[in-house]
Order: sequence, then C-alpha cells, then structure tokens
Amino acid sequence: MTQAIRHDAMRARNLALVLGEVSTRGSVTRAALAEITGLAKTTVSKLVGDLIEAGLVIETGIVRAGERGRPGMEVRVSGRRIAAIGLEINVDYLAAHVVDLTRSVRLRRTQPVDNRMGSPGDVITILQDLALSVVDEAVDTGLRVVGGVLAVPGTVDLATGTVHSAPNLGWRDVPLLSMLRMPFPMRVDNEANLAALGELWFGAGHPDFLHVSGEIGVGAGLIVRGELFRGFRGFAGELGHVVVSPGGPPCRCGGHGCLERYAGQDALLSAAGLAPPETAPEERLLTGAERSAGHGTEHSAEHGAEHGTEHSAGHGTGHGTGHGTGHSAGHGTGVTELLRELDAGNRDALAACERAGWALGIALSSAVNLVDPGTIVLGGIYAPLFPWIGGVVTETLTARLGQMREVVPSVEVSRLGTEAATLGAAGQVIQQVIADPAALLNA
Amino acid sequence: MTQAIRHDAMRARNLALVLGEVSTRGSVTRAALAEITGLAKTTVSKLVGDLIEAGLVIETGIVRAGERGRPGMEVRVSGRRIAAIGLEINVDYLAAHVVDLTRSVRLRRTQPVDNRMGSPGDVITILQDLALSVVDEAVDTGLRVVGGVLAVPGTVDLATGTVHSAPNLGWRDVPLLSMLRMPFPMRVDNEANLAALGELWFGAGHPDFLHVSGEIGVGAGLIVRGELFRGFRGFAGELGHVVVSPGGPPCRCGGHGCLERYAGQDALLSAAGLAPPETAPEERLLTGAERSAGHGTEHSAEHGAEHGTEHSAGHGTGHGTGHGTGHSAGHGTGVTELLRELDAGNRDALAACERAGWALGIALSSAVNLVDPGTIVLGGIYAPLFPWIGGVVTETLTARLGQMREVVPSVEVSRLGTEAATLGAAGQVIQQVIADPAALLNA
Repeated sequence: MTQAIRHDAMRARNLALVLGEVSTRGSVTRAALAEITGLAKTTVSKLVGDLIEAGLVIETGIVRAGERGRPGMEVRVSGRRIAAIGLEINVDYLAAHVVDLTRSVRLRRTQPVDNRMGSPGDVITILQDLALSVVDEAVDTGLRVVGGVLAVPGTVDLATGTVHSAPNLGWRDVPLLSMLRMPFPMRVDNEANLAALGELWFGAGHPDFLHVSGEIGVGAGLIVRGELFRGFRGFAGELGHVVVSPGGPPCRCGGHGCLERYAGQDALLSAAGLAPPETAPEERLLTGAERSAGHGTEHSAEHGAEHGTEHSAGHGTGHGTGHGTGHSAGHGTGVTELLRELDAGNRDALAACERAGWALGIALSSAVNLVDPGTIVLGGIYAPLFPWIGGVVTETLTARLGQMREVVPSVEVSRLGTEAATLGAAGQVIQQVIADPAALLNA
Repeated sequence: MTQAIRHDAMRARNLALVLGEVSTRGSVTRAALAEITGLAKTTVSKLVGDLIEAGLVIETGIVRAGERGRPGMEVRVSGRRIAAIGLEINVDYLAAHVVDLTRSVRLRRTQPVDNRMGSPGDVITILQDLALSVVDEAVDTGLRVVGGVLAVPGTVDLATGTVHSAPNLGWRDVPLLSMLRMPFPMRVDNEANLAALGELWFGAGHPDFLHVSGEIGVGAGLIVRGELFRGFRGFAGELGHVVVSPGGPPCRCGGHGCLERYAGQDALLSAAGLAPPETAPEERLLTGAERSAGHGTEHSAEHGAEHGTEHSAGHGTGHGTGHGTGHSAGHGTGVTELLRELDAGNRDALAACERAGWALGIALSSAVNLVDPGTIVLGGIYAPLFPWIGGVVTETLTARLGQMREVVPSVEVSRLGTEAATLGAAGQVIQQVIADPAALLNA
C-alpha cells in the first residue's frame, strides 16, 4: 500500500517534470527529455504516452535525428483538448475567455451589464448562463474545460471564495464561490491580481512589474520574479485607495482623496463632462433567457486550434488576443465616447486625462517608493487611454523620484487592456494543469 | 581533485546543517543531532568537534540520557568567541554595536555628531575610530569580530557599497565601502532595511511586519515570512517619501508633501516649537583624537558572555538590549527635549505629535493598501514617542481601511527604538556565520 502511494507520488512528480520541460522548451524529442530529466528512456516514453492519451501533449510530426540512436518525433503541449475558463464580474460588464493548454485564446465573450444595480444572486445567474454557453461552444470545438477562475473587483478570501468587500459593486461578505454552479472546479480571486498574472503570461513577458488595472475601480498587482505578491492577508495591490490628497473627495471605501476618485473610470468620465452611462432599466440586469437571445453580448471565437506552436507556453510571450490596445475590447460605451472626444481634441476630455494621469503619477510615486517595481504596466482602460495619460504619469513620477533614484521605472502600456483579468484567470488554471498534470489524469 | 572539492562542499553543507539545528534548538546532544540530520554519529561528532574548536559551539555541561545508548552532553551556540559589529551613520549620531553569536549585545556605543555638516571622508574618519575602539574593547573580552555591516540613511548599491543618495546627509554617489578600512569584511546597507531585520532578530519575533524607522528621515522595511522585501533595484521601503499631500511643503528628495516633512524628526521638532538643535561648531565634527578623549561619546558594555542560553538564536525572540523603549538610547537632545515637553503637557508638543501621527497614518494607509503587512511596528524615535502618536496612527488607519478590510494591521511599538539598525547590521553577519560556518572555519 505504502509502496503504491510512493509509486503514485513519483509518477505524479515525473509527469509534472516531463510536461514542464515540454511546456518550457516548446517542442522536444523523447530522447532529449530523457537526457534533460535524467529519467530512463522507457519511463519517459511511458509518461509521454500517458500525456498524449490525456490530450495534454501531441506529436508535432517533426523528426529530429538524435545525437546517439534513432531519430525521434518531437512532442509539444497540445492545444486541442484541455482548456480553462476565465470569468470576470466587473462593475459595468461580465466577461468569459476560454484558453487552451498552449495559452491560445479560443473564445472571448463580454457582456455590458451595470452590476451596481444587481444583487449578487442576479449577477451570478447571468454570469453562469454566459459561462455555460461559452463552455458549450468550447465543447463543440473539441475542447474540455477542466477548471476556471472568477475575477471580481474586490477583496477576496481565497480559501472560501468569499468576496469580503467590493465597494464599487456595493457587495460585502458575498460567498460567491458557493453560489456558483459549474461542472468543474472554480476559484474566486481579485481582478487586479489576476490582471497582473494575465500580463505576466499573455503580455510583454517581464518577470518584475507593477500592473495597474484601470476600471471603475483601480487595482494593481505586483509581480516579483514571476510571482504575484499578495501580502499577508492577500489584500495587497489596492492602488485605487492609495492617498492622492487626504482632504480630497470622499471614496466608497470610507477614505478621502483616494486615487480612484481622480483616475477611476467614473471620475474620469465625470471630469470629461461625460456622465457615466445610465443604462436603461431593462438593460441593467439581463435574465438568462434574454442573454441566450444574444441581447447585448459581444462575442468572438478563434477556431483553428493548432495554430499555436509559436505561443510556446511557459515564457509568457505567447498570446492570442490580437486586439489588446484597440478601442473595442471590454470597456463600456463611456470610455469609447471619451476616446472619441479625445480624438476630436475636446478640451475637457484632455484635461480630465491630464488630471487622472497626474493623480496616477502621485499614487505610483508612493508605490515605487514602497515596493520599487521593475517597470509599471498600465492596463484596463488605461491601455486605450495611454496616449493621453502615459506622458503625464511619467513626468509626475520623474519629478517626484528622479533625485532619489538613478532609474525611474518606465511606464508601459499593456497589450491586453481590460482582457488581462480573464486571461490571468484562465491562465491560472492552465498553470496548475502544467504544474500537476497527474491531478487531471487521475480525475 | 574533483573529489576533494566535493568533499569540501559536503562538509560545508553538513557544518551548516549541524550549526543551524543547534542554533534553532537552543541546546541539543550529538545523538539527537545525528537523529535529526540523518548523518552518522561519528560524522556529527567530528563536525561538532570542529565547531567547538572554532569557538562557534560550546558544551553546556548538561547531560541528557539518550533514548538508546549512552547519555550525552548537550551543546549550544557559543557567545564567547565569534562576534559581529553593526555600525550606523545617521544624520545626528554615529553608533556601533557588537553582538555575539548567540545574538546577545556585548557592546554599544553612540556618539552624537551632526553629520549634515561633514564631508563623507570626515564622517568615515570618526566612525572608523569609534568602530576600532569598540573592536579593541571586544577583543579584550575574548571576542573575535569577524565582520560588520554599516547602516546609512539612504539608497545603497549593495554590490558596490556605494550610497546613491542620502538626501538628509546631502550625500550623492559616495563609494562608502571603499572608503572604510576595517580589519574584517564589511558591507553597507540601508538603515531602514537593517532596522527591520533588527526587529526581526532582536525584537518581538513576528515573521511578517512593516517596521517604520523614525529618524531625521523616515524609512520602512517590509518583512515577509521572515525575509526582507527589497524590491527590484533594492530601493523598496522609502516610506518617508510616500505622498501625504501632493501640494505640501517641498522635500529634500525633490518631491512635495512627503511623509518626512510631517513626521520626520526635524519636522516634528519644528512643529513643537523646538528648533532642531544647533550643535556648536567644535562639536559638529569631532576628530579622531577628540573622540578618543571620550568627547561626546556615550558607551556601555555588557560583560558576562555566557548569560545568553535563553537568547536561543534562530527564533528572533532573544535580545540583550534591555533599554529599547527608554528615553536614553541613540536619539539626540532634540527628542529628549520633546519628550520632556510632552511629559509636561506642552500643547505645541502634543499638537506636533498629533499631526505627525496623522501623517504617519495617511502614509501607512497607502502602505497597507499596497503591501498588506501582517503588523506595523513603529521604531526609531517613534518608539519613545509611541504614547503620543500610536493612538492617532491607529485611528487614521482604521478610518481609512476599516471598511475594506476585516482586519486592520495592529500598530505596535518597537522594543529596540533607534538601536534596531545597528542590531540588524550586526545580526546580518551573525546570520551569515550560522548559514555558512565553513567560510569562517576555512578562513
């Protein structure tokens, strides 16, 4: 019995070792895997066989001559079978992304909904319908969704999946995970944390940066040597409530003069003279039936599973999104209108961005003084707004930090925009499958 | 040859293993060490013998019956031979501490000097005389100082020991390490980082906290699971330059409204109507000869080396300071005067502390939002001032954070006060000896 358990543990470890190497190297022969891992060739062949059978690995068709012995067929991570879903509840939209094991984005769906008007139960109902229809679509393309993560704009107890506080949704102590009924394991996590992981795995590929998620709320995720820094209780990265001016306008968090009140989406639109969009009552909360009828839902699907060898998983450079910084993805009509006004040179709109960029620079100067990140990546709505705020942010940072530091962290634009959180959510499941494939094989 | 190198590497690893266990456990028999480490009893006996001979370990005289076999004598880390020196250049004082291998403080010396008036060369000359006389005193008690670390209030390039910027000293790009001539290896590090490590090893023993060093400048060190978080370029923890109010008074760093301008020692004294003490010209910079004559130097020595078994190294609970929160240690005459005025109920002094505490609360609310520390420990001059600022800090934090977080980090007082940095500096060398005793044995 003990020996059987030991054997299982060793097999799990070796499966992870082999899949990890395949994932990191892109494509590799069994002989090379044996050499890299130090495992016997027969053991490697057996493990690779199991991974192929489970749909995690696939033969490339490319034969390489070995240094010694027979030539061998290269294998790589398969994008054909295993997939994960990333879900997001944000203040003014819901989103779902399906990502395959090669980290190619296979399905994306966003649905504008004003969730400030809805009870958690209502929001979950709509989200669940959205998620299940996306999963059905994935199944139709031959994918099997093995797990998911739900991103929410608030502080989350990771162990229980309870949202402690999401001030912009007006939610407190909502046991979100237990309300969700999906046919595979789910977790709930903070939106800004997941967006930072999304940037790590699907973005520019830096291992050290602070990712800023501009939404109705403003959050941040600090990545240190490729790992998310969560803090002692898991509530790090609440950049939106860093003090810009202690006597400033009151914030939903109970404080005053928080960054969110200067640079959050609502504050930005108001300052630009664009009231945050008042959604019509019937659009506020869509029922499942309405959503199924396609009401208010944008969706797109990328078919053609195996176009992804260049998305060599494991290095964070592969991404399959294509339209990250464009004006279309995820953000609501308010930001689209703001972008139109900015393009037209509207002075109020330009001044609003100047003010938001200054406030971001102030809050980020505090962040740099405290955590000294490698670079700063502006994401969420700041991605499409980058041409109008990036410069002011850099100027403000340089004015405050330039004398103390030889190098002021550079301020870059995210290629993912508002999609980062759902991609990070799905990516977290993929990461886990790669790290422990035995859990999937034995399930 | 390769085999000899391998043998040396294995011996180094085993020496570290054995000394680490002795350090963690306080006292332990050779038989128990063999059981814990899995090494052969003869190997353990040989290693313990080498550690005893080098003065790192000592027999306690206590004999324990083994579960099997003969009774054995317990050994523990020795405080009799190996020691480290912690040095500090601060704005208004110099300090030196000698700490032995059990983390007992053996010698402490502080010397009030206004270093704002001095060139780095002059300051180093005085510091070196102070350090060498302390080392001589240590040698007289049978100790061998094997290394040291120098704490400075500025950003430091750890690799070269160059101070990039110490605004309160007026120093830029000073190659401090290369200017220091000591008869053992030295390093240079940031004062606030070392103070946090001092709190970790000599303080209350939390593994997760943010330590705030109140001096003329204000710094912080974040300890995460017993490790110092340094940031990407090593410049994390600059709490003194976190924004309290962006339109506030100009700061030496080039910014405006930094915490330091509200809660740094000079700002606090000015607000209390106590001008920062104008040192008389002849006291500004003492020459080596003057210092040797005992001019302006406070010193104390704790003899009686082996009183330290309860200071079981490795858990951070042992400390031999005794007068950490008193009004005497390290801080200058200005703070002593402020404390007198506070005791007397002086309104300006009370209002100054109220304002400093509020500003600290604002900056710390940003810090908690960003890094979510376990607890907050107020050190440096905030330790003696804690009765007058601790309450306001907690109130301000709770008002800003209470709605978003179930638990607002508690605000505690450091038992070490302004001694934390020098203790952390010496402790870092001790830590290194425990982690790699072979380096010392082979030297």
